[in-house]
Amino acid sequence: MPGEFGLIAKYFARPTPSAVLGPGDDCALLQPSPGCQLAVTTDMLVAGVHFLPDTDPGRLGWKTLAVNLSDLAAMGARARWVTLAGALPTVDEAWLAKFADGLFACAREFGVDVVGGDTTRGPLNLCLTAIGEVEPGRALRRDGARPGDEIWVSGRPGLAALGLAHLQGRVSLPEPWPRLCVAALEKPRPRLALGQALVGVASAAIDISDGLLGDLGHLCRRSGVGAALRLVQLPQLRDLAGSGDSYDADLRRLALECQLAGGDDYELLFTVPAAQHTRLGAIAAELELPLWCIGEIVAGEPTVTVFDPDGQAVEFARKGYDHFGQ
Amino acid sequence: MPGEFGLIAKYFARPTPSAVLGPGDDCALLQPSPGCQLAVTTDMLVAGVHFLPDTDPGRLGWKTLAVNLSDLAAMGARARWVTLAGALPTVDEAWLAKFADGLFACAREFGVDVVGGDTTRGPLNLCLTAIGEVEPGRALRRDGARPGDEIWVSGRPGLAALGLAHLQGRVSLPEPWPRLCVAALEKPRPRLALGQALVGVASAAIDISDGLLGDLGHLCRRSGVGAALRLVQLPQLRDLAGSGDSYDADLRRLALECQLAGGDDYELLFTVPAAQHTRLGAIAAELELPLWCIGEIVAGEPTVTVFDPDGQAVEFARKGYDHFGQ
Repeated sequence: MPGEFGLIAKYFARPTPSAVLGPGDDCALLQPSPGCQLAVTTDMLVAGVHFLPDTDPGRLGWKTLAVNLSDLAAMGARARWVTLAGALPTVDEAWLAKFADGLFACAREFGVDVVGGDTTRGPLNLCLTAIGEVEPGRALRRDGARPGDEIWVSGRPGLAALGLAHLQGRVSLPEPWPRLCVAALEKPRPRLALGQALVGVASAAIDISDGLLGDLGHLCRRSGVGAALRLVQLPQLRDLAGSGDSYDADLRRLALECQLAGGDDYELLFTVPAAQHTRLGAIAAELELPLWCIGEIVAGEPTVTVFDPDGQAVEFARKGYDHFGQ
Repeated sequence: MPGEFGLIAKYFARPTPSAVLGPGDDCALLQPSPGCQLAVTTDMLVAGVHFLPDTDPGRLGWKTLAVNLSDLAAMGARARWVTLAGALPTVDEAWLAKFADGLFACAREFGVDVVGGDTTRGPLNLCLTAIGEVEPGRALRRDGARPGDEIWVSGRPGLAALGLAHLQGRVSLPEPWPRLCVAALEKPRPRLALGQALVGVASAAIDISDGLLGDLGHLCRRSGVGAALRLVQLPQLRDLAGSGDSYDADLRRLALECQLAGGDDYELLFTVPAAQHTRLGAIAAELELPLWCIGEIVAGEPTVTVFDPDGQAVEFARKGYDHFGQ
């Protein structure tokens, strides 16, 4: 059985063409693009908290990187480099090989190099730090939303939470939703191209990792504004709950809850001055990614008010996922 | 009890004058110095593996950052920014406050800003990523040692391992060694000033986190050279073991084992072309840090040969700490 250093070399030391010096020294050496700012983010994923301990290691490898890149996407940054630290309870080479395959598949797909890392024994824990680049003053921050801005979201938030409910046997989804929802949960695609397309267009952005309402709340607090969210403008999941005699009201309620408060989506939520409205159609078409205008920013307290299809304000108790607070 | 986001803000979101944007957004934004390369390193510390679970949280906070900065020191980089991710089994605010105090004391002392992070519930695990800067082509790498270069080490490697043996009751140290050894273990000082002073002087460098022999072996393998290590040139710990009637042979043996194979020292081990020999005295004087020439690089297989005071090659079985390999 190889030692720690052998394990690192065997599974994680792959060519790093974008680095001056990759794994194997005290530090990686990287040459930033002239004039660019760095966008840096770190995420820690813990077995039993962020993923089921028996999660397929290949999918876990993909997701570990994807959720990190999603934070770069939310800043409008280009993804460049990542470091990976991992604690493993045992040396399971088959597990490591699959995890590395998933991780590097995601790295290839989104053009980043894994330039350094650390492995140790311990309860399963994965920590990635991603570094991206963005032109000075151009990053999409959370604090730029202004009253009158439109609120937009990409893709179909809620699918990941529905996928989790499906895997846990808490819901029976009609075809083809199980596959779509589980894919959203296990193989999220960081919206890097969208984030970069929104530079100069969006006034603020955040990725939806804690749930749409919760993350919109974060954005409102940082911007010092309120938000009006219109349920009728959300991406419709009507066919999910059937219609007519087969209409499943419980499933419709669950789907709505997942849309508003389900975590793990990694779609982008962003605000756009009304004058930019027409740009969004072109971006959606070019990226082949649906984009939805779901409400507007309002002046006042940094709260999110949800309006039902009749225009009535409604209450939602569960506003997002908080590892310590709920 | 505050939620996750409140905890982050309360204990870890402090002013970050060196960042364009600090904690609270999807990413931190950093402006690198024009033309510089980045040195990036990540370390994961696990309770029960890297530190005793009941370690004083203030000292743990210091050390968590210090060991990361030590990797920057070993590259000759200037420390700039760090991100911190942590898994905590419970929300213990007194623990968090002390941990943050220790972490930020180290950050102030060495001039870095904590620009971002992540907290989650889970078995106690701390992961830091540090980013430093160095002029292009000037970093101290592990692969530059050449036959004929002298091998040098800073400070007194072995004290940290002796401190651990003392805390574990495995050894009885005479005064004032308990205090010195425990300080080396619990409050290591990353040799950042030394690393920067060695830029343009040293041909290769590594920090001693895995033990002197083990880390010298890493350096040799990366450089494709061998090493001759002369015990008589090591910093003497003779007074530790007493003399004459009070000479403690067991303690002398333990001290030597700790010097050669004890981990957690965070001193710098580096190689220097013989022509630079005289520069080292001035650097040692200016930094008020003892520097020791302990051997020389030789051509041939990347192995470390240890010579006893009589010039005889001797064997050491335990060559360093490997989380999975021993």
